[in-house]
Amino acid sequence: MSVYFEDLSVGDTMEFGTYEVTAEEIVAFAEQYDPQWFHVNVERAREESHFGDLAASGWHTAAMSMRLLVDQHLSEAGSLGAIGVDELRWPNPTFPGESLSLHVEVLSKRPMESDPGRGIVRTKLTTTNQDGEVKASMKPISMYERRDAEQ
Amino acid sequence: MSVYFEDLSVGDTMEFGTYEVTAEEIVAFAEQYDPQWFHVNVERAREESHFGDLAASGWHTAAMSMRLLVDQHLSEAGSLGAIGVDELRWPNPTFPGESLSLHVEVLSKRPMESDPGRGIVRTKLTTTNQDGEVKASMKPISMYERRDAEQ
Repeated sequence: MSVYFEDLSVGDTMEFGTYEVTAEEIVAFAEQYDPQWFHVNVERAREESHFGDLAASGWHTAAMSMRLLVDQHLSEAGSLGAIGVDELRWPNPTFPGESLSLHVEVLSKRPMESDPGRGIVRTKLTTTNQDGEVKASMKPISMYERRDAEQ
Repeated sequence: MSVYFEDLSVGDTMEFGTYEVTAEEIVAFAEQYDPQWFHVNVERAREESHFGDLAASGWHTAAMSMRLLVDQHLSEAGSLGAIGVDELRWPNPTFPGESLSLHVEVLSKRPMESDPGRGIVRTKLTTTNQDGEVKASMKPISMYERRDAEQ
């Protein structure tokens, strides 16, 4: 599947899932990138953390969301990466045993002035668990190739 | 080292480093979380990508920055995680062989109204390579324990 700038319309929504969260992966990610005790020590997290259980690093939740997006939306040809992300939020911690899904809404799009072969698309991504509880939300600013530019 | 809410003052700056970026780790992270071709295929990235070389996933750059912060700043006791991040930007791609450092500036702080034992601190994080080129910047909103609350 190839998704180009022209294929996205403001107001479009998409649903992608699912990513199964495991304690092993939470700990492995956090040991490498965010080794705070409430992300790496299962027993202590359960007993002492204000989260009440082992909680995934927020960066891990964002990364799992990205994997859902790449697998099911970002194309071989059309995606050129992101400039940045606004309003990244983690309203609830991600726990082992949860199953994550991603909701995508297209907020706006415009051609890129500095490069006629590309366009800028703003989306809102919302990551929820199997009960619809929101684990992360964010507004990426992404570059897509324009279909015209291919021809 | 324990860093509490009271230990941080607006205008404080800190420098943390360094994280050595390898092609192997760029590919390993991206294969798990962001398997777009310009993050996982070294040869094709060098020949075809607009980045000009294998480029780390922006989430990987953020995660490496987090590791610098955790190792050298976030305390055993005082850090309670982040609510979110504003204005995450990736102005330049991160390449293999680079050495990342993190600059931290305290932007604002306030007690948490809903919990007298915690405070909210806003910082600006800037991740640069060995030549001072900016690879990522972001403004996290973090919770810290108040020292008073320990007593």
